[in-house]
Amino acid sequence: MPHVLVIGGSDAGVMASLRARELDPSADVTMVLADAYPNFSICGIPFYLSGETPDWHDLAHRTREDIEAAGIDVRTDTRALEIDTASKNVLLSDADGEDWVAYDRLVIGTGAVPVEPPLPGIGLEGVHLLHTMSDTFALEESLRHADRAVIVGGGYIGLEMADALTQRRIEVTLLEQASEVMTTVDLELGSLVGEELRRHGVDVRTSALVERIDREGGGLTISGRGFAPVTGDVVIVVVSVRPDSLLARRAGLPLGMRDAIVVDRCMRTAAPDVLAAGDCVETWHRLLSKPTYMPLGTTAHKQGRIAGENAVGGDRRFEGSLGTQVVKVFDLAVARTGLRSVEATREGIGSVTTQTRTFDHKAYYPGATPMEIRMTGGRDGRLLGAQIVGDHRGQVAKRIDIVATALAAGLNVDQLSDLDLSYTPPLSSPWDPVQMAGQDWVRGVTHVEPPSA
Amino acid sequence: MPHVLVIGGSDAGVMASLRARELDPSADVTMVLADAYPNFSICGIPFYLSGETPDWHDLAHRTREDIEAAGIDVRTDTRALEIDTASKNVLLSDADGEDWVAYDRLVIGTGAVPVEPPLPGIGLEGVHLLHTMSDTFALEESLRHADRAVIVGGGYIGLEMADALTQRRIEVTLLEQASEVMTTVDLELGSLVGEELRRHGVDVRTSALVERIDREGGGLTISGRGFAPVTGDVVIVVVSVRPDSLLARRAGLPLGMRDAIVVDRCMRTAAPDVLAAGDCVETWHRLLSKPTYMPLGTTAHKQGRIAGENAVGGDRRFEGSLGTQVVKVFDLAVARTGLRSVEATREGIGSVTTQTRTFDHKAYYPGATPMEIRMTGGRDGRLLGAQIVGDHRGQVAKRIDIVATALAAGLNVDQLSDLDLSYTPPLSSPWDPVQMAGQDWVRGVTHVEPPSA
Repeated sequence: MPHVLVIGGSDAGVMASLRARELDPSADVTMVLADAYPNFSICGIPFYLSGETPDWHDLAHRTREDIEAAGIDVRTDTRALEIDTASKNVLLSDADGEDWVAYDRLVIGTGAVPVEPPLPGIGLEGVHLLHTMSDTFALEESLRHADRAVIVGGGYIGLEMADALTQRRIEVTLLEQASEVMTTVDLELGSLVGEELRRHGVDVRTSALVERIDREGGGLTISGRGFAPVTGDVVIVVVSVRPDSLLARRAGLPLGMRDAIVVDRCMRTAAPDVLAAGDCVETWHRLLSKPTYMPLGTTAHKQGRIAGENAVGGDRRFEGSLGTQVVKVFDLAVARTGLRSVEATREGIGSVTTQTRTFDHKAYYPGATPMEIRMTGGRDGRLLGAQIVGDHRGQVAKRIDIVATALAAGLNVDQLSDLDLSYTPPLSSPWDPVQMAGQDWVRGVTHVEPPSA
Repeated sequence: MPHVLVIGGSDAGVMASLRARELDPSADVTMVLADAYPNFSICGIPFYLSGETPDWHDLAHRTREDIEAAGIDVRTDTRALEIDTASKNVLLSDADGEDWVAYDRLVIGTGAVPVEPPLPGIGLEGVHLLHTMSDTFALEESLRHADRAVIVGGGYIGLEMADALTQRRIEVTLLEQASEVMTTVDLELGSLVGEELRRHGVDVRTSALVERIDREGGGLTISGRGFAPVTGDVVIVVVSVRPDSLLARRAGLPLGMRDAIVVDRCMRTAAPDVLAAGDCVETWHRLLSKPTYMPLGTTAHKQGRIAGENAVGGDRRFEGSLGTQVVKVFDLAVARTGLRSVEATREGIGSVTTQTRTFDHKAYYPGATPMEIRMTGGRDGRLLGAQIVGDHRGQVAKRIDIVATALAAGLNVDQLSDLDLSYTPPLSSPWDPVQMAGQDWVRGVTHVEPPSA
């Protein structure tokens, strides 16, 4: 009857707790979390703020009751202050005071925190970071009286928030310092996302370097280089996140990229019986076969599950991330998996990327929507990745998953044509769009580099 | 400058012709077809008849002009009467008479023909089989004056036609001899399809053995065992198809299952320089590693492409079919890939199937639809197949393709959890439904057969 102590009540922590109990019903599992919201879907926050999910309680993947029903002792509003890996104790603090709690196995799932850029005015009232439920409630309060919002950062959350606030009839200005929004996809696709935002009335300003925020009259004015000053009632700063690894660092655990906790493939840290998972750890990249930092909810779920399994005697390995992700922005879904050419080059891998435009299903059946696929393969023919932009009803998300599965299988681009994929005119074509894109890639490569024979 | 002669102008024939020209622009490619409609999408016929695709011309995957623009000599209304594999000549017949045409390589893509059950009355006016464009025009003519239709056969085409005619406000009775419609999926899912048909007003009669069709007064009356006689203005008989292999048989080519032409993995027949592809040939099954008969448009495209490649000196292998398919029936999509338990058992493979009910995306985001997944794995843990029924907007088709890709990679069911699949609340869950189904399968198997350790 080992005592498994889990620090963190978000995706990784909850998954670890549940998996430990599932595999060892005799395990004594305690999950502590700093706030009162176990297993809340951070990814769902924009949909609460848009009004699409009216009740914030619904954002929980599982309720506290669900988790307790699995036999897990849930301690909310409880902070872990210190880990003593030698004696295997953690100092916990809650409203009743502090106490040392012993563990047989510890899982650290402290997650990430938003990066707060060092801008003059970042601390002003009406300026919000967005990561926790408390952040969410504070922002919701500000939004009630807002007509104009300024979003700093054109990544996933920034785009989702632009969509969400537009749906609330709040005027949105989006500031992005790169030359196009959504720098996680190539410019050719990012520009389509920019167009979609503008089409829905978002004032998108790219190459905009924010320098300061000032309160002027009734509003907040953001100014900087590359854009005319813009004023809003609310400012949302969503530039990126960093691992919340302070506790681990103070316990002497080695940190790696961006100060994420170093773990092995089984989610074990350098300290005996201490595992870690989720946004606070380095993530193994399935294609690069090395650690990277890539905080994603899907990855946190997988790593948490593995940490929980290994905390009760398992030996399961994390197979790695491909950075597969999708975001819905108004009518578009934007998805990617694996490596883009720019990323492959950075790793010393020669690659070719081609772009294919097609429809999600046979054009003769009503409702066909266009889809742009960028396919990346190595000069040796190996599939490296894909990016897709299309209507969110066009099965874009699960088409990127076909590529993600093919990547996991180590296929060549050419082998996409061998996959036996489903077809009916209302839902696809006899060659699925990802297969057409693969065939175009092979043709493109042949064109670029004619075979010597 | 080899002369490649292609018999057949549907998916396999057109793919073979185009691929041969693509790889060898010096190749002299002639494609002959018995009717005037090259590369028409047979799968699209129900959507023309429903009115969703108003112009039948749009059903062509490619027009005659597209095909000719690729440098292919297209001979419509031309029948191949005889193949002399010794002298490498084919006797062709058209309006101008007969002539022998020599080939260097021959590709046979004669397709399939509908099975005409030996029913008294099958030849009556108003009774239709459905496979070619001519059949389609004849049926369309009958439907113009029809208020009530009877469909014999509850397979893919029967279901699509029930949907199509209901949309045209024609009353539909569907007769199926099995105990549920759509016997290509398990009863648990077939029954959901039956409910969907009834919900939309289709009079579904199962366990109905049709024995005869009679003209009585202004209508056609179908009678038999297990159902009360039913009268309609039109009867559509869509029970199954069989390979159109007469020409090949007369040329002395070996036939296999259901008289389909025997080919090797490179789509070569027993005769030198004669290849064959599509619905007229046996199809290699990727999981069973043996030939089967499984006529599908996707497979015809793949095999045709390979035959065309190998006709101009290539040596590409057909990797095999998994029988992946999807059909849209009113609001549902019904999809399958790989083996069901009943099929595995028939092949001597022990298997377990579990069923999972979940949503296509996070339930807190509007529009989530339920999805039923049946997951089949071998007793050794190997993934064997899956079946999914859900709303057609729920990415059912491309979710079955994730499983199809995992099958091609030879994954275990448990390894589905290792796949890095995309997630955003409007489009999925942190564990995709196919991963949840895989996890349920592993739990189910553990439950059924506790590990000995």
